[in-house]
Amino acid sequence: MPTEVKVLTDVLKATKEEAARLRADFARDRTYVIDLIGGPGCGKTTLLEATLPALAKQFRTAVLIGDVATALDAERVADLGAQTCQLCTEGACHLSPSLVRVGVSELAGPPPELLIIENVGNLVCPASFDIGEDAKIAMSAVTEGPEKPIKYPTLFRKSAAVILNKIDLVEPLEFDREFYWSQIARINPQADRFELAAKKRKSIDPWIAWLTARIRAKQKC
Amino acid sequence: MPTEVKVLTDVLKATKEEAARLRADFARDRTYVIDLIGGPGCGKTTLLEATLPALAKQFRTAVLIGDVATALDAERVADLGAQTCQLCTEGACHLSPSLVRVGVSELAGPPPELLIIENVGNLVCPASFDIGEDAKIAMSAVTEGPEKPIKYPTLFRKSAAVILNKIDLVEPLEFDREFYWSQIARINPQADRFELAAKKRKSIDPWIAWLTARIRAKQKC
Repeated sequence: MPTEVKVLTDVLKATKEEAARLRADFARDRTYVIDLIGGPGCGKTTLLEATLPALAKQFRTAVLIGDVATALDAERVADLGAQTCQLCTEGACHLSPSLVRVGVSELAGPPPELLIIENVGNLVCPASFDIGEDAKIAMSAVTEGPEKPIKYPTLFRKSAAVILNKIDLVEPLEFDREFYWSQIARINPQADRFELAAKKRKSIDPWIAWLTARIRAKQKC
Repeated sequence: MPTEVKVLTDVLKATKEEAARLRADFARDRTYVIDLIGGPGCGKTTLLEATLPALAKQFRTAVLIGDVATALDAERVADLGAQTCQLCTEGACHLSPSLVRVGVSELAGPPPELLIIENVGNLVCPASFDIGEDAKIAMSAVTEGPEKPIKYPTLFRKSAAVILNKIDLVEPLEFDREFYWSQIARINPQADRFELAAKKRKSIDPWIAWLTARIRAKQKC
């Protein structure tokens, strides 16, 4: 086997093993973990702002926020009832399991019942990395246009749920909602589907109910 | 030196060398080359639709379009007067110089005077790769929120020009335009700045004039 292949295989193997260790720890601690993935500005942090107050009232909740260079997002959600840790990738395009491990080790007190990991704003790379999550959540926004699922299929194929945000702009932007969901029906028919407007706090409840059911189920494992 | 480092260094060196060869070829052929970079749905292809008819009338123009999985974007611009070649990265998050080389070799006839390379929809990874271009162009949209330059500083720092698209939505979305440009002033004060609405064909002319001046300057080299 050529050296290049050998080394890459070793790196990937170590990454997979760290993800498996994280998943085992989350199982032991009964922490339900989501990996929230979407492009820049699709509304991931705004969704956290819209949901954390309700979730953190019911469950011990922690948030890890991946960002290339700043702590802006973590500052936005710092006072909403969840422990928050910023993970700066220093230029890297996705969160690695080892960086998630660092974030988890920073959390104080008993393990959270819900851990939300907001990945780096990127529809491509984070989709390919296991970080020990129970579910990847794909998020895109009406403002990005309707063809995102077929253009970035890996993420939408792997996700347990798909969130279409900024739904209040469907009409002014003449967004083709039917086409959007027809792609999901083809790529990943099992995915649960949410349409909401995080900034306007519109249609947030079904998403909170979905998470709540899964957090409770994990508590009973 | 550990093997891992050696191999990575070799790969990076080969990539840099291929970029340098491309740049030398573009210099010999007097082809002005831009690397257009922005997140998913910020309007890169729509900008091409808005500018290609005018540019292709004046200059031999070619377009290489990077995409993870589909040829949708290339189909949109195929009949606008420029030779178009789709580069499918098969999951990779950015265009490499060797993939650009493949695209260039597919072009028929004399070398183009203008080569537009639309990179994969991603604000992170493409910023770190030299593909032989004369200028990287950073594009973001009002709909993504105003803090993109400081959140993804590598791209905005390296770009010769910054395009803020979907400017028709500044008022309804209460976009903080002053804050947006203040970040550019800090990160990259030399960058030329454009505000436009590609879909509405609004304020496109200054951008075409900017390109035109640079294409002409390269012809005189």
